[in-house]
Amino acid sequence: MESAIKELEEKGKVARTAAKKLAFTSATIKNRALANIAESIVARQDEVLAANRMDLEYAESSGIDKSMLDRIMLSPSRLEAISDGVRKILALPDPVGEMYDMHIAENGLMIGRKRVPLGVIGAIYESRPNVTIDISTLCLKSGNAVILRSGKESINSSVVLAHIAQEACDQAGVVEGAIQIIESTEHALVNHMLKMSDMIDLMIPRGGAGLIKIVKENAAMPVIAGGIGVCHTYVDRDADLDKAVAIIHNAKVQRPSVCNALDCILIHVEVIKTYLPVIAAKLSKDNVELHCDEKSMDILKSIPFLNLVNAVEEDWGKEYLSLKASIKVVSSLDEALAHIEKYGSGHSEAIISENYTSSMRFINEVDAACVYANASTRFTDGEKFGLGAEIGISTQKFHARGPMGLKEVTSYKWIIFGNGQIVS
Amino acid sequence: MESAIKELEEKGKVARTAAKKLAFTSATIKNRALANIAESIVARQDEVLAANRMDLEYAESSGIDKSMLDRIMLSPSRLEAISDGVRKILALPDPVGEMYDMHIAENGLMIGRKRVPLGVIGAIYESRPNVTIDISTLCLKSGNAVILRSGKESINSSVVLAHIAQEACDQAGVVEGAIQIIESTEHALVNHMLKMSDMIDLMIPRGGAGLIKIVKENAAMPVIAGGIGVCHTYVDRDADLDKAVAIIHNAKVQRPSVCNALDCILIHVEVIKTYLPVIAAKLSKDNVELHCDEKSMDILKSIPFLNLVNAVEEDWGKEYLSLKASIKVVSSLDEALAHIEKYGSGHSEAIISENYTSSMRFINEVDAACVYANASTRFTDGEKFGLGAEIGISTQKFHARGPMGLKEVTSYKWIIFGNGQIVS
Repeated sequence: MESAIKELEEKGKVARTAAKKLAFTSATIKNRALANIAESIVARQDEVLAANRMDLEYAESSGIDKSMLDRIMLSPSRLEAISDGVRKILALPDPVGEMYDMHIAENGLMIGRKRVPLGVIGAIYESRPNVTIDISTLCLKSGNAVILRSGKESINSSVVLAHIAQEACDQAGVVEGAIQIIESTEHALVNHMLKMSDMIDLMIPRGGAGLIKIVKENAAMPVIAGGIGVCHTYVDRDADLDKAVAIIHNAKVQRPSVCNALDCILIHVEVIKTYLPVIAAKLSKDNVELHCDEKSMDILKSIPFLNLVNAVEEDWGKEYLSLKASIKVVSSLDEALAHIEKYGSGHSEAIISENYTSSMRFINEVDAACVYANASTRFTDGEKFGLGAEIGISTQKFHARGPMGLKEVTSYKWIIFGNGQIVS
Repeated sequence: MESAIKELEEKGKVARTAAKKLAFTSATIKNRALANIAESIVARQDEVLAANRMDLEYAESSGIDKSMLDRIMLSPSRLEAISDGVRKILALPDPVGEMYDMHIAENGLMIGRKRVPLGVIGAIYESRPNVTIDISTLCLKSGNAVILRSGKESINSSVVLAHIAQEACDQAGVVEGAIQIIESTEHALVNHMLKMSDMIDLMIPRGGAGLIKIVKENAAMPVIAGGIGVCHTYVDRDADLDKAVAIIHNAKVQRPSVCNALDCILIHVEVIKTYLPVIAAKLSKDNVELHCDEKSMDILKSIPFLNLVNAVEEDWGKEYLSLKASIKVVSSLDEALAHIEKYGSGHSEAIISENYTSSMRFINEVDAACVYANASTRFTDGEKFGLGAEIGISTQKFHARGPMGLKEVTSYKWIIFGNGQIVS
């Protein structure tokens, strides 16, 4: 333990030194490293998949549920997708050095902002090994050094992926220490890492509510918390049924283990008789367990082959991360908005409606990172939002909100060019 | 004490409720309130100045030094300036609701960001009563509710100014509770306020190093710290002497009690014989006490009428806030950069040089909120940077850096307009 802490401190110092060089590393070198990473992930997939099999075997032996296994699992096509993600980051403009708000003041001073990296980013994540590459490459492109702390569930996959990224960086001439991973899974290391505010400028936790809470409460440095997605989709009185069915099915079923998946269906009382059976039937084909409030249960209970449960208070505001959803009947848009305000986690919320005013009110009034009209909440994602990839999804308002791409892990400095100006 | 805490909690709840309404208050109403404030500050200057005299008398009786008195003092012309500042904020576009990064994704989704207020801002400040109006009006325009906590040094002035702002808001139809001030100066209230993270979204401390430290260490909510300005001006070998003299004199003397005033002169060894006596003579006319390193003392000690002191280690990295400056001779730009990196507070740093490469290296390499070539660091100010006024000057990289205007106290949400899109 002693030696693991010493090693972590050492990584902190190396990262701090690396960050200073990285801030001035050219886009050419960073992009060469990214190209190497994209290539190596696929070229060395046997290594990665072998490590991933170890993780999966361990996970299976400890009786983890299916959706968690899905989070850990890599496959040639998933590695291909990760590699494509890296190439997309490569293709994005280098955010570092971008100058904006440049203007000439009345007195002739040229004043503006120049984008700079934040410094050293710490990332603590749990089960998804692709986070290793997403975060490393976004940090690299944005000129930030990174110290990765993977959960034990995917530690073998993450370590191999981090080593691949490190070697790719070495070959491109990136300063040593730009990407580092903590190989020990000792729990106490997390607590120590959270106190290293002189070495780590920003901590990004990615995982379940427990992890986020620990990091928020104990980190001595700024934290961007997020990832907890209690996502509602509200089917308005004026919803188009086909859109509602397709969007709800997609939001719940397409990848239930992720934070932007649907948790709660809110539906206007005037359409429950006509719409709810169709929606429920579609979800039941994928075995979705529906936790129904009284009114929706009344409508659905007589329909055969549905997987129904009576909702309890704990169902509202619950992130299922699995093939479960709650259903609550509301009598108005206002009631839907109030429910979301009370139980939402500020992640992703959607309305299905053909009514212009209802849709615009929902978009304007819901206080969440991502607010949708007539689309699946599953779109909440850095890549899908045009950011290349994402380092996380922030559910806080400070610094960055929603999917965080390159610019969201930078700061700026003001630069002022004068020719002798003084303040009068 | 009990009742003061209860009152503070009540203010928190009122602010939270007000913030929800303020987020949707039109620019017309907010601007009407700002116009009222600007007018009332001047129309009711007798009240303000009477309260200010009480503060000044108290300060004088407790033996505060001159530069502190200057911070507390209001005058008709200073009130006019504060009022003008409010009118400048009025004239700025409403940041709330601004939409940016809007684009159509490949699948036809319209995606972008919409600017929203942060919510409730807490401001804890010390001696300058104008901060009451600067912060209140910037919060109002940006749709944030604010809870002000003024230092006891200027509590009478601050309370009167806050009441004027509140009444101006009432008359314009702004929701009650948009601007609130804590009238008790009980010290324990600060500690309580710092724990109210469910009611206050961001804490802005403005004052000395002691206050900033207490807030940073104890606040349960995000903090934007700043205001500590250890500001260097480096006179390069290739500096223009006239510019150097004018800029250094301005940076030190024009208003020594503020954070962007000069603290340390770095000067290239090759120009100390020719430049240093001229610079020192100019500063001596305003009685600046010069804390000299060995080499600069050697040059200056034989010159009559200078106010010289041998510099000690504590002089480097010291914010004087008074008519004192340190002088250190360096043998190269690199040595100057290293000194700034070691001792600077990341606030404002300047180079005086006619050399293009030296100037550009300084601008690029110095890691501070504001980096100048050939201008006075006294320009570091939200109004002078075109932000209207400032809510503070951040010396951190997270969320906002340097002078913070309207946009710096906002967040955004992603809004997504679809027509049935699902993730494939």
